[in-house]
Amino acid sequence: MKVGIIGGSGYTGVELLRLLAPREDIEIAFVSSRALAGTRVDTQFPSLRGFCELVFSDPDPEAILASGCRLVFFATPNGTAMRQAPTLLEAGVRVVDLSADFRLRDVAVWERWYGQEHACPEWVERAVYGLPETHRADIPSAALVANPGCYPTSVQLGFLPLLEAGIVAPDSLIADAKSGVTGAGRGAQVPMLLAEAADSFKAYAVAGHRHLPEIEQELERMSAEPIELTFTPHLLPIIRGIHATLYARLVDEDVDLQSLYERRYAEEPFVDVLPPGSHPETRTVRGTNVCRLAVHRPQGRSTAVVLAVEDNLVKGAAGQAVQNMNLMLGLAETAGLRQPALVP
Amino acid sequence: MKVGIIGGSGYTGVELLRLLAPREDIEIAFVSSRALAGTRVDTQFPSLRGFCELVFSDPDPEAILASGCRLVFFATPNGTAMRQAPTLLEAGVRVVDLSADFRLRDVAVWERWYGQEHACPEWVERAVYGLPETHRADIPSAALVANPGCYPTSVQLGFLPLLEAGIVAPDSLIADAKSGVTGAGRGAQVPMLLAEAADSFKAYAVAGHRHLPEIEQELERMSAEPIELTFTPHLLPIIRGIHATLYARLVDEDVDLQSLYERRYAEEPFVDVLPPGSHPETRTVRGTNVCRLAVHRPQGRSTAVVLAVEDNLVKGAAGQAVQNMNLMLGLAETAGLRQPALVP
Amino acid sequence: MKVGIIGGSGYTGVELLRLLAPREDIEIAFVSSRALAGTRVDTQFPSLRGFCELVFSDPDPEAILASGCRLVFFATPNGTAMRQAPTLLEAGVRVVDLSADFRLRDVAVWERWYGQEHACPEWVERAVYGLPETHRADIPSAALVANPGCYPTSVQLGFLPLLEAGIVAPDSLIADAKSGVTGAGRGAQVPMLLAEAADSFKAYAVAGHRHLPEIEQELERMSAEPIELTFTPHLLPIIRGIHATLYARLVDEDVDLQSLYERRYAEEPFVDVLPPGSHPETRTVRGTNVCRLAVHRPQGRSTAVVLAVEDNLVKGAAGQAVQNMNLMLGLAETAGLRQPALVP
Amino acid sequence: MKVGIIGGSGYTGVELLRLLAPREDIEIAFVSSRALAGTRVDTQFPSLRGFCELVFSDPDPEAILASGCRLVFFATPNGTAMRQAPTLLEAGVRVVDLSADFRLRDVAVWERWYGQEHACPEWVERAVYGLPETHRADIPSAALVANPGCYPTSVQLGFLPLLEAGIVAPDSLIADAKSGVTGAGRGAQVPMLLAEAADSFKAYAVAGHRHLPEIEQELERMSAEPIELTFTPHLLPIIRGIHATLYARLVDEDVDLQSLYERRYAEEPFVDVLPPGSHPETRTVRGTNVCRLAVHRPQGRSTAVVLAVEDNLVKGAAGQAVQNMNLMLGLAETAGLRQPALVP
Repeated sequence: MKVGIIGGSGYTGVELLRLLAPREDIEIAFVSSRALAGTRVDTQFPSLRGFCELVFSDPDPEAILASGCRLVFFATPNGTAMRQAPTLLEAGVRVVDLSADFRLRDVAVWERWYGQEHACPEWVERAVYGLPETHRADIPSAALVANPGCYPTSVQLGFLPLLEAGIVAPDSLIADAKSGVTGAGRGAQVPMLLAEAADSFKAYAVAGHRHLPEIEQELERMSAEPIELTFTPHLLPIIRGIHATLYARLVDEDVDLQSLYERRYAEEPFVDVLPPGSHPETRTVRGTNVCRLAVHRPQGRSTAVVLAVEDNLVKGAAGQAVQNMNLMLGLAETAGLRQPALVP
Repeated sequence: MKVGIIGGSGYTGVELLRLLAPREDIEIAFVSSRALAGTRVDTQFPSLRGFCELVFSDPDPEAILASGCRLVFFATPNGTAMRQAPTLLEAGVRVVDLSADFRLRDVAVWERWYGQEHACPEWVERAVYGLPETHRADIPSAALVANPGCYPTSVQLGFLPLLEAGIVAPDSLIADAKSGVTGAGRGAQVPMLLAEAADSFKAYAVAGHRHLPEIEQELERMSAEPIELTFTPHLLPIIRGIHATLYARLVDEDVDLQSLYERRYAEEPFVDVLPPGSHPETRTVRGTNVCRLAVHRPQGRSTAVVLAVEDNLVKGAAGQAVQNMNLMLGLAETAGLRQPALVP
Repeated sequence: MKVGIIGGSGYTGVELLRLLAPREDIEIAFVSSRALAGTRVDTQFPSLRGFCELVFSDPDPEAILASGCRLVFFATPNGTAMRQAPTLLEAGVRVVDLSADFRLRDVAVWERWYGQEHACPEWVERAVYGLPETHRADIPSAALVANPGCYPTSVQLGFLPLLEAGIVAPDSLIADAKSGVTGAGRGAQVPMLLAEAADSFKAYAVAGHRHLPEIEQELERMSAEPIELTFTPHLLPIIRGIHATLYARLVDEDVDLQSLYERRYAEEPFVDVLPPGSHPETRTVRGTNVCRLAVHRPQGRSTAVVLAVEDNLVKGAAGQAVQNMNLMLGLAETAGLRQPALVP
Repeated sequence: MKVGIIGGSGYTGVELLRLLAPREDIEIAFVSSRALAGTRVDTQFPSLRGFCELVFSDPDPEAILASGCRLVFFATPNGTAMRQAPTLLEAGVRVVDLSADFRLRDVAVWERWYGQEHACPEWVERAVYGLPETHRADIPSAALVANPGCYPTSVQLGFLPLLEAGIVAPDSLIADAKSGVTGAGRGAQVPMLLAEAADSFKAYAVAGHRHLPEIEQELERMSAEPIELTFTPHLLPIIRGIHATLYARLVDEDVDLQSLYERRYAEEPFVDVLPPGSHPETRTVRGTNVCRLAVHRPQGRSTAVVLAVEDNLVKGAAGQAVQNMNLMLGLAETAGLRQPALVP
C-alpha cells in the first residue's frame, strides 16, 4: 500500500521514514521537502542508508495524486495542512495531519491561539481526533485524522481514568510536563543549541502554551464538567521523551487507583500501567509507541499524582500517526510498532 | 580565621573546598575523610591543584580541637554529626551541619523519616535552621546551624512571600521539583551512572521524600496554619541545579504577585526576582549562591505558579553553609560568594 | 531454535535480550544472573515489558543442558567463560563468548594482560575469532566463537583495507579511539557517574589497554609484517558509540583509497563506506549492527586518516554476537539485525 | 582602567564579561553588539544580573575613542577586526583581537584559508601572537595582540617541549583534537542543536581546518625544521573544553619526557604538568585559564603521546585575552584569573 509524506525533513517526518521504510506492507511513494527537494533522503539522513532510496520532491499536489497514494501524512508546520490537505481529501486521498490544524473543534479558539485565520473550517468538523485510546471507533472510517500533540497525548492518557471515573475535581488539574528538545522541531534556534540547553533546565510558555486548549477540549469530553488545567511545560536536556507529572484533587477517596488504571488500559496495546510504587523513566519508551504510566497517592492524602512517559516523536507524533494509519488502512493496529525501547 | 571540614570527599565537602580554598580571610585547618585519609586532596580532586595543599585526615576529635578551628562544617552522611558534633560544641567550636541531623525540631518525626534513633535530642532544640532569609537574626549567635536541604531551600524561598502574605490555601501546595544528579551524592550507585541517567528523566520517591517534613515544618512557621504539601522530586540529567515549580491556589486574587515578590526580597543578596514573564534557567545560577525566582498566574486563573532555581551544591548546600559561616563569624554575608555563574 | 544467555544483567546481556526477544525464529530458553536470580527480567528492565516473561536463573550447567539450547552466549566478565564453557562445549552446545577469554591465541600474552592463569588453553586454539568480515568462512562450523572486543572491531574494520593492500607502514599505526560509557559495563563505579563523566572528556589507559594485544594480533593476520600500534582510548560522555580515528603512513601513494574501501566492503552487509569527504557520526549507528567508515588523505600528504563508527553494544558486542549466531545456526546473516538507527 | 568589548554577544564576548565584570581594577566602558544594540546586557544574559548594568551599543568608532578605553577586545567574526581595529590602533588604543585576522604572518596563506582579501596587511606584521608561554617578552609593549585560536593553544602547549628539545620527527606530528560545542560559536546552526549533537560524536573538517596553518606556523617557530601536522578536529557533546591528544615519533629516546615537561613549564602560572601516568579531564579546567598536560610513552615504544586539556572559552579564548591584557597593562599576569574550576 502506497503512502506519502509531506514535510519529510523535520523530526516527525524523518521519524515517519524510520518507522515506515523498513516495512514490507507499506511503500513510501514520495516524500517532500521544499528545502531539500532534489537531494536523496539518505545523504541528509545517513542513518537511513540502506533503507530508503527516495529523493525529496516538491510538494506538488498533482504529482501526489498521480503517485497512487491512499494516505498522506502532513508533517508540516502549523498552517500548511489546512491549505494543502483539502485538495487531496476531495480526491479521495486520506490524510493524517501531524500538525495542529484540525485538532481544535472551535475554530475561533484555534485562530486565537495560532494567530491566523483558519483556511478550512469545513474540514475541522469532519476531522477525527486521532487518539485511539479515546476515539478508536471513529478512526478506521475517517478521511482526515488530526494527530494529537505530543504533550496532549501524555496528559490525556494520564488523566483519562480519573476523569472518566469522575473522582477528581475537574478545576484542580495540574500538568507539570517536561519535554526533550526534539519537541521544538529541527529549526535552528539559539535556545536549542547544545551549548544553551545542555546541563540546564527551565520552564517555558508558563503564561500559555498552544497545547492547553487542545488538552482542555479533550479532557472535557472525558469529564461531564468544565476543566481548569494549569499546564506548565519545561525543556529537558534530552533528545526524546516527555514526562508528564499530573496532579488532581480526589473528591472520592475510596477508589483503588491502581485497579482503576489497570482496568481502563487492560486492552490497550500501547498503554502500559506499571505496578504500584513505580516511577517510569522516559528512556524505557525511547523509540517506541508506548505510553507508560504510574499512579500514586502520596501520604494517603487527597491528591492523586500520575506519572506518564512517552517518546514525543513516537507516541507523541509519528508513531501515533502510524497507529492511526494502521487503523485507517485495516492493518493490525500494532503493525510496525512492536520493538523494545533502546535502553541503555 | 581557621575552619575545618569533616567529610571532605563528597560533593558538598569538595564544594566547600572550592569556595573556601581561594579565600584569604579563611584558613582551612583540616579536612577529613575516612576513606581517603593520608592522601593529598588535590590528587583526588585535580581541579584544586594550586589551591589546596591539604592532606585528608581521619576525623579525630582531639586533633580537630587542637587545630584551633573556630568553626567546623559537617559534610557527612545523615547520622554522623549528631554523634560527633556535641564534643566540638561543648568545647566551644561552632558547627554548621550540612546533613539533616538537626533540621527537624520534632525528634520523633526525624526518627521516623530517617529510620534511626536520634543521638542528640538536646542539641536539636538549640540548633538554628540556617536559611538566612527566614532566620537571619538567630544565625550570628548560633553555636549550631542546621544547614537546610537542597530541595527545601528552593521550595521555601519560592513559597515564602505567598505564605507570609496569607494569600494562598495552605493545604493546596504542590512542589514539582527537579534536581541534578549531584543531589544524590558521590556514592557509586547504578541508577546514577551516566549510562543510566543520561538522556532520560524520571520522578522518584513520590510516596515520600525525607525533605517533605523539613519543608512542611518551615512552611508552617511562615503560615499561621497547617500546611499540606504534595512534593514530587525528579532526577534531571544535569550535574548541578534544582528547578522547583510551585503551585498554590490563591484565596486572595487582588494582590500583585510580582510586587509582593520584589518587595519581600529587595534586600536579600542571594535571592533574585526576575521581571514579569520570566523563566529562570538552572544554568544561570551554576556555581553561584543565588536563588532566582519568577512568579506567574497563568490565564489569570486562581493558581499561582512560582519558578525557583538554585545550584543544589551552592545555595542548596555548601554556599549556604558559607553564607551561614560568614554570618556566624561576623564577616560580610556575601564574602567569597560573589561571582557570576558559569554560563554557557 | 533455543538459545541461552549467561550473564543477562550487564549491558551486553540486556542488549542480547533486546535483539533476540522480539524474534520469532529464536526462543530464549534461559537467561542467568547470579545477582538477580529469581526476579523477572522485566521488573529489572522495564523496557522489555511485553517482550520477555523470563525470570533470571542461576547459571546451573545441568539446567542449561536440560534446557535444550543449541547455543549459549556468555555475556560475563572475563574469566567466567573459560571456566564454564568447556562443559557445555563438550556436551555439544555451541558457544559465543562475548568476553575476552578466547580472543588471544597466545595464552601467555592473555595471562599477562588479564592477570590470571588461563583455565582452558585447549579451547583457545579451537576458538574462531568472530569478526565475520575476516573470519566468515570459519564461523558456521565453529563450536566456540570468541566475539571481538568493541574497540577491536572498529579498529580492525578501519585498518583492514589498508593492511590487506600493503600500502601503509605497519609500524606507524595510531588508533585514537573514543567510547561511550556503556563500554565500561554496568558496574557501579564513581568515575562513570553522570556527575563525574558528563560534560567532560578524558583519555584513559594510555599506558596500555587490554584491547591492544587483541588488535595487534588480528592486524598482523591482515598484514604480512609485525604491527606496531599506538592505541589511545578515551571516554565519551555518551551512552553508546565508538568513534575510532585511525592514522597510518602511506608507503604507496598511488592507490585510490576511496575505491579500495568501497571494493573491499562491497558485499559486506554491516560495513558501510561513506562517500568521499564524509564524517560519520556515532548516532547514525545507534542501536544498529553497522560499522560506518570514511577515509581521508588530508592535504594530499602521506598520512591516511580513517574514521570508523559503531555502536559498541551492537556491532561491538551483542549485535556481532547475534551475527555470529546467525552464521552458526545457518540463518540469514542479517536476521534480526536490520532496522534503521534511532536518530535523532 | 577602562576597556571595551566589540562583539559582546557571542560566547567569547560574554566570557570576557564574566571574567572582567567582577574586577575592581578594570572598568568595562562599553560593550557593543550590532544585533542587540540598545538592550541591557543582563536581560540577554541573566547570569550577569548584579554584575553588569551596561547596555549593548553599536560599534561606533568615535564613541569608542571618546569612551577613554585604553584597550579594546575584538570578539567578532573573522574579517571584522582587520577593518575596524586600525582606526583605534592609530589613535593609540591597544587591541586584543580574539579572531583570526592577525594570527597568520603570511597574508597569502591567510587569504587562501579565510577566503577573502586581507584588509590590513600592514598591521599583520606588527601584531604579536598572544601565546604568553612563547611570546611573553613581546606582549607588554604590543599595540596589537593576535589572540591564539582555541585548538592552536592546546596543540602548541602540548608539543612545545618536544619541539624545543628537538627530540621528535617534525614531519610525524598528529593532533587528534576534540572540542566542546561552544567552539562553534553562538550562531544558530542545525548541527549544533542539542537534538543533533548530544549523545553523538564525529570528526569534522578532516580535509583541512583553518587552525592548521596557524598551528604549523607556530610549531615551526619552535622547531628548526619544517613541520608536517595531521590535524583532526572532532565535536564533543560537551559545552566547554578541548582535549588534544598529540602524537610524535621520538628520534631521541633517551630524554626523560616527564622532567622535560615539568622543567619547561615550572614557572608558567597557567600550564600544569600532571604527575606521570595521569589523564587530564576537561572538567578540571572548566571555567579556568589553565592548560593541563600529561605526557606518556606507551609500551616504551618510540611514539610520545601528550594529553592536553583547556577550556576553549578561557585559555582558548577570553581568558588568554585577559592574560594578554594584564601583561599589556602592566598588571599581575594572573589578575582576575585565579579560581578553581567548577567541578563537579
